[in-house]
Amino acid sequence: MRTTSITIHPDALMHNLKVIKKKLNPNTKVLAMVKADAYGHGIDATVPALIHADGFGVACLSEAMAVKQVLDSRNVKKPIVLIEGAFSLDEWKVAVEHDFGCLIHHQNQLAWALAHQPKQDQCCHTIWLKYNTGMSRLGFNDDQIILAAKSLTDAGYRLILTSHFACADDKTHPLNALQISKFDQALARIRAFAPDTLGSLCNSAGIFNFKDHHHDWVRAGIALYGSKPVADQSAKALNLMPAMTLSAQVMAIHTLAAGDSIGYSALWAAQKPHKIAVVSIGYGDGYPRVVMGAKVSVSDTLGNRHLCDIIGRVAMDMFMIDIDGLDIAIDAPVVLWGDSPTIDEVALCAGTIGYELMCRLTTRPKRCIMDAYPPNKES
Amino acid sequence: MRTTSITIHPDALMHNLKVIKKKLNPNTKVLAMVKADAYGHGIDATVPALIHADGFGVACLSEAMAVKQVLDSRNVKKPIVLIEGAFSLDEWKVAVEHDFGCLIHHQNQLAWALAHQPKQDQCCHTIWLKYNTGMSRLGFNDDQIILAAKSLTDAGYRLILTSHFACADDKTHPLNALQISKFDQALARIRAFAPDTLGSLCNSAGIFNFKDHHHDWVRAGIALYGSKPVADQSAKALNLMPAMTLSAQVMAIHTLAAGDSIGYSALWAAQKPHKIAVVSIGYGDGYPRVVMGAKVSVSDTLGNRHLCDIIGRVAMDMFMIDIDGLDIAIDAPVVLWGDSPTIDEVALCAGTIGYELMCRLTTRPKRCIMDAYPPNKES
Repeated sequence: MRTTSITIHPDALMHNLKVIKKKLNPNTKVLAMVKADAYGHGIDATVPALIHADGFGVACLSEAMAVKQVLDSRNVKKPIVLIEGAFSLDEWKVAVEHDFGCLIHHQNQLAWALAHQPKQDQCCHTIWLKYNTGMSRLGFNDDQIILAAKSLTDAGYRLILTSHFACADDKTHPLNALQISKFDQALARIRAFAPDTLGSLCNSAGIFNFKDHHHDWVRAGIALYGSKPVADQSAKALNLMPAMTLSAQVMAIHTLAAGDSIGYSALWAAQKPHKIAVVSIGYGDGYPRVVMGAKVSVSDTLGNRHLCDIIGRVAMDMFMIDIDGLDIAIDAPVVLWGDSPTIDEVALCAGTIGYELMCRLTTRPKRCIMDAYPPNKES
Repeated sequence: MRTTSITIHPDALMHNLKVIKKKLNPNTKVLAMVKADAYGHGIDATVPALIHADGFGVACLSEAMAVKQVLDSRNVKKPIVLIEGAFSLDEWKVAVEHDFGCLIHHQNQLAWALAHQPKQDQCCHTIWLKYNTGMSRLGFNDDQIILAAKSLTDAGYRLILTSHFACADDKTHPLNALQISKFDQALARIRAFAPDTLGSLCNSAGIFNFKDHHHDWVRAGIALYGSKPVADQSAKALNLMPAMTLSAQVMAIHTLAAGDSIGYSALWAAQKPHKIAVVSIGYGDGYPRVVMGAKVSVSDTLGNRHLCDIIGRVAMDMFMIDIDGLDIAIDAPVVLWGDSPTIDEVALCAGTIGYELMCRLTTRPKRCIMDAYPPNKES
């Protein structure tokens, strides 16, 4: 069997959530971001491990439904928040029916909320009101945010004022201070007429870099999955554990003669007789096609692991690695990312960030779950 | 509803298969490559449109099973070929049981075939014997290929000698002539003792660039999906139609003030008051995160389409585009790739090839099928 697989580690997810919680004031709540199928880890595999988060953030209704199914199966009720809000009045009604929390970032969404209100005791009676403090992506601007807040609170809604950092991974970027200042001012102005309004500003990078600005809810994403949220420190340095291992196997071994080239466009050629292995994974599985200087970890016949260079072009189903001088057999396990190399190391070679690599895996690798999930009650 | 979607066009798949067949001698057969979930198009959506191919090529057993299910549901029996062969003796036995054709590229696979033989009338009684003529990926070398062929034909197997071009997209690359010459010589030597041996050398690039070397089977992949197989001509110039449209919608519109920056790392800033739109797709859907100079096609309120620049960083769920001076509304349809821009144009901006973009879409976009499938009998 082609054993190319994605293994999810619930213990790492649980550990990372604990690391994040330790950074927070005990009253600050964690919205676990499980959008994009839990950053490619799978909502089914991930949500049970993050059951002690205070809520779950998703990008669209189908993701909210998937999270709800997992929570229902464990008889757990926690907020599930559509962090882009509803895309239509009909969808707003569906969200209210299922009691999904909703973000509101533009005037139409506000009108839907005013036209069709949930009951007072529903989770979706609290609105995540988005304020554009400098990302210029979603949210009301300076001249609209107070009015938007006023019309919602006048209608009886409770608010969580929320905004998103553009540059929180770089602690020194001047935009951070501006965003923090705008957010604090707007929150104070809204609290003047709606004192129970909560605040949520920080993503993972903000959690680590701006500990004085955690407010009432943080939105933890990448840090939960054990990839680095900040520019200047590795995930390991932050005590985060990788929640995913991507693995494959050696499927052929060749000894090249000097001058033999390999793979598409013959990008690499042997200078002398040279042993190479073919690995059973490619961009058809989601491994990136362009990786300059990436390594994989291969186990030799004694079980010792070696970091080997990828050589030549990554193809759809396979690529080649340099195993010269090593005792590697067909079927030897190969780790593409996990403990070593880390996903952040591979991302650097691919000119991107770990987020993209974990999200863009395809359905072809087999999905497995390591270890057990925690009980519903926190120990 | 977030309407981010992948639309498959069966008429384009059918058209491209016809274009390919016209390039071939009438006796040459087409193995339609549907590995990697039909290059991301979905086996379920693709195989019915390619029902008039002569066989289907896949990379692993689970893909073979998926193709078989589609063919069975239409009462069609055609060869399904595991183009990396079996990964174990057990898997070889399963392949024989389901009558999947198998490639053999190394000694262990050869031993399994000799140890456990199918019946004479089975499709898998024909072996796709892989010869490494210069790709140095899979296959027997010059000193092994004749012996391998001899032992299989002695055991009663029929052979299709197969090899894979490394540089067929570049007609002038010197490796092509070397690979062609080696292949022709080995085929002649094998036919001396096994005259009914067939040959298969060409992938899509070979079909277009090396029309005198099509032999008995070609393996059509990328050309079926309407992306360019050769370096020096566009898909359109080859009369290939895109089989996939990736689309999304405008989900917010802002007028920036001069100096406002957008997105992560504040990579783009407005020089003057400037209208932008937020598009509901990101790398969590499979759109590439790094695209330099990519455009998307957006429909204005009159239904006219405009090519607009992506500005700032592509995020997991969204990115921004420049719509200054255009009359665009929220919910306006956005084409990421399809007729325009083409997937090859976007791939160029992403520093990769269309193959990778189509394969690496995630499960989040909704999948739709346009138009009807052909009848089982060719008209």
